[in-house]
Amino acid sequence: MPKPEILDPQGKAVAGALPRLGFAQFTSVRQGKRFELEFEGPVTDEVLAAAREAGEHVLSNPVIEDVVAVYAEDAAQVTA
Amino acid sequence: MPKPEILDPQGKAVAGALPRLGFAQFTSVRQGKRFELEFEGPVTDEVLAAAREAGEHVLSNPVIEDVVAVYAEDAAQVTA
Repeated sequence: MPKPEILDPQGKAVAGALPRLGFAQFTSVRQGKRFELEFEGPVTDEVLAAAREAGEHVLSNPVIEDVVAVYAEDAAQVTA
Repeated sequence: MPKPEILDPQGKAVAGALPRLGFAQFTSVRQGKRFELEFEGPVTDEVLAAAREAGEHVLSNPVIEDVVAVYAEDAAQVTA
């Protein structure tokens, strides 16, 4: 996600549009990226650590973005 | 996230680059969007349902994207 101190014009545009579209209850929106990495086999702590490292060093721009969540999901659950 | 049957060139590019950068364990990558909606007060089931509806009808393109996860996070937890 964009760091809190970074302006997020996409999120601001969405936040401005939501009340017009019937969703007045949300006070602020920020838009970021979500990556799904597939791994064959059990997701151990090492795999999660590698995923976080990939997220922090390769998938995100650490100058303007934070990695906010890294977690395992079952493949069956993802496609459900 | 892009629907499984939709080609994801961004994810494919990332998946091709990861092994070169030392992350050979991941077999596939898909890239999508993540939105953080702020809400003042307790996040009830109605609020989550509204967030899911906004995600399905306003924030995503239902022709090519699925809403895969809608969940509540504590503000303190998000900024930690």
